[in-house]
Amino acid sequence: MLPKKHLFDIPAGVIYLDGNSLGVLPKGAAERAQKTITQEWGQELIRAWNTADWISLPQRVGDRIAALIGAPEGSVATGDTLSIKVYQALAAALKMRPDRRVILSDNGNFPTDLYMAQGLINTIDKDYALRTPAAEDVVDQITEDVAVVMLTQVDYRSGRLHDMKAITAKAHAVGAVMIWDLAHSAGAVPVDLTASGAEFAVGCSYKYLNGGPGAPAFIYVRPDIVHDVQPALAGWMGHDAPFAMELGYRPAMSTERLRVGTPPIVQLSVLDAAMDVWEGVDMQDLRRASQALSELFIQEVEARCPTLTLASPRDPEARGSQVSFAFEHGYAAMQALIDRGVIGDFRAPDTMRFGFTPLYLDAADIVAAAEILEEVITQNLWQDPKYQTKSRVT
Amino acid sequence: MLPKKHLFDIPAGVIYLDGNSLGVLPKGAAERAQKTITQEWGQELIRAWNTADWISLPQRVGDRIAALIGAPEGSVATGDTLSIKVYQALAAALKMRPDRRVILSDNGNFPTDLYMAQGLINTIDKDYALRTPAAEDVVDQITEDVAVVMLTQVDYRSGRLHDMKAITAKAHAVGAVMIWDLAHSAGAVPVDLTASGAEFAVGCSYKYLNGGPGAPAFIYVRPDIVHDVQPALAGWMGHDAPFAMELGYRPAMSTERLRVGTPPIVQLSVLDAAMDVWEGVDMQDLRRASQALSELFIQEVEARCPTLTLASPRDPEARGSQVSFAFEHGYAAMQALIDRGVIGDFRAPDTMRFGFTPLYLDAADIVAAAEILEEVITQNLWQDPKYQTKSRVT
Repeated sequence: MLPKKHLFDIPAGVIYLDGNSLGVLPKGAAERAQKTITQEWGQELIRAWNTADWISLPQRVGDRIAALIGAPEGSVATGDTLSIKVYQALAAALKMRPDRRVILSDNGNFPTDLYMAQGLINTIDKDYALRTPAAEDVVDQITEDVAVVMLTQVDYRSGRLHDMKAITAKAHAVGAVMIWDLAHSAGAVPVDLTASGAEFAVGCSYKYLNGGPGAPAFIYVRPDIVHDVQPALAGWMGHDAPFAMELGYRPAMSTERLRVGTPPIVQLSVLDAAMDVWEGVDMQDLRRASQALSELFIQEVEARCPTLTLASPRDPEARGSQVSFAFEHGYAAMQALIDRGVIGDFRAPDTMRFGFTPLYLDAADIVAAAEILEEVITQNLWQDPKYQTKSRVT
Repeated sequence: MLPKKHLFDIPAGVIYLDGNSLGVLPKGAAERAQKTITQEWGQELIRAWNTADWISLPQRVGDRIAALIGAPEGSVATGDTLSIKVYQALAAALKMRPDRRVILSDNGNFPTDLYMAQGLINTIDKDYALRTPAAEDVVDQITEDVAVVMLTQVDYRSGRLHDMKAITAKAHAVGAVMIWDLAHSAGAVPVDLTASGAEFAVGCSYKYLNGGPGAPAFIYVRPDIVHDVQPALAGWMGHDAPFAMELGYRPAMSTERLRVGTPPIVQLSVLDAAMDVWEGVDMQDLRRASQALSELFIQEVEARCPTLTLASPRDPEARGSQVSFAFEHGYAAMQALIDRGVIGDFRAPDTMRFGFTPLYLDAADIVAAAEILEEVITQNLWQDPKYQTKSRVT
């Protein structure tokens, strides 16, 4: 099934190792945006909610994402941002365990997940606590006072992979609700939400799903508990009858109750087009290809750049689809690398991060990238003053 | 400065009286989306956050909206949906009045505003009450137990206009916080947020601002109280240093603290292009043109269709930029009208709603629309069975 490089528009001269941050442009996406804007919006105007079926687009896209993460049809709602979806899952989970006061995460979680928890705790204004031990200590801290365990499966810096099934089982054994953030998992590693038994999962679609900058997020709810979910963000698109214009909120009798406001139709259309490239992709095949690429990269970089230190688990089974190297001058080195067409990214304080997306990368790309990295490091090209000034977005 | 019809792509044979629901396509929008998708995303990829200045796009668009609603630069943040922005304003307002327990709105408010209040109350789980008297009784109910008054300035069904300055003054006289929903005001009527003294305002950009389906929302905070705003939705893009990846949330020292997750760059680009048509528009001129169109429409419809009853205030000063007529068979009549190229919309149970957008409508359009409405009503064209079946979106 792989590679599918021909389905993407990749700039000439670029080796893109940052699909874990913003995926590349699928060939059908621009055309789909044009159709949505000029034909549907432009010609159909308000009628397009019916004639172009905009109204069911969030659900249709949700079903396509569901298929990649081991979730049944109708169990994934799309829209908003990942931060919002975290808040929704967390607020609903706390309502399910009213006698408990602990949210357990880890200190490697992506900051916005922790911030949203802090904002929710401040809003509820009761004696909730957010615990953030090191990732390796999380399992031991899943105790009977924990209301909800909220973890990102793949660490955004190191790529370290949590054991979804084992941790969910431990959470359930003590009566806690489980929320998985799949930001770096969806489209990157095989995920089987149904088998995991987790109550909630959330994720974004602009990384491995190639939905474009600011593409909508998604939220999964285990179907058997949908009716126990009390939406904190009780928007009209999550109402059982949005167009009845009732004064009282009645949640939809499905995962759709976790929709909030009017859906971002242009971004959803682009994402829908991006999902076309996943037709026929077997996630196990993808995983094998990803591991082959990352193993090759580690081997090449360690051979060529001895001053770089692997900052990811060495066992490929313990990693997601990215690899990081620590280097004191990582920021400047990454700028020098990008300047030479190899695009990865940097995370403070010293992490050079490289993502592997087998849909549009092959072994030749990896070797070429390692060669250029070798030049940058061994010839100290990163010392050029132009690589020292930090941009607003790193 | 008006009309600016030439700046819009309006379908041939259509008279569009639904710009209060979804504005028409500005000519530059499709091209801008293409540029954002193919050049910025496609070619620059992750670098576009800096090279195409995506990172400041939410703020730049916010400043353009601010200029239309009497708000200073830097006081309007964009992103998310209006429902989300309502929640943010309401949660922050309640934190500012910790000893009070009443949210006052009216029963003509758009349902999602009330739903979001209900969701917030359920999340906080204290003894908050949401009061929703009739719009005309709101002023009398602004009493000293009210924490926050949250009103939509223009009623979505009748077009009835609340007196922003007087109600805000009354709210402040009793020590309540004031939130205005400008969904049907921004780009429709002159708004002077600074003069009103209101603490918060929220709105959407897909109606009179022509930002396209699912365009981002906005939120205004009065500059002198920004530092008192505790964000409930404490997302990383509202953090003082988003890319420092700190574990603890520290809000930005500006309105930007009300941003949440990664901004929807494609939709924001389209909205940014749509804002171009507002260059040189004087909101007082626009208001006069809007009132002339709506007065003409009422006069024409009342003369031609005696079975329709005006369901909006007769005084143009008491209306926003829309006019509604009640008609028992309003749903079918609206379908028949749309079928003949005159696009308005319908709100249960019997409201035929017509919006007036002087940027792309003139008197000839209004007379032609009234003529077609006369045919539909006096010849009972709405009785055709094909107009009786309700669509999913009305």
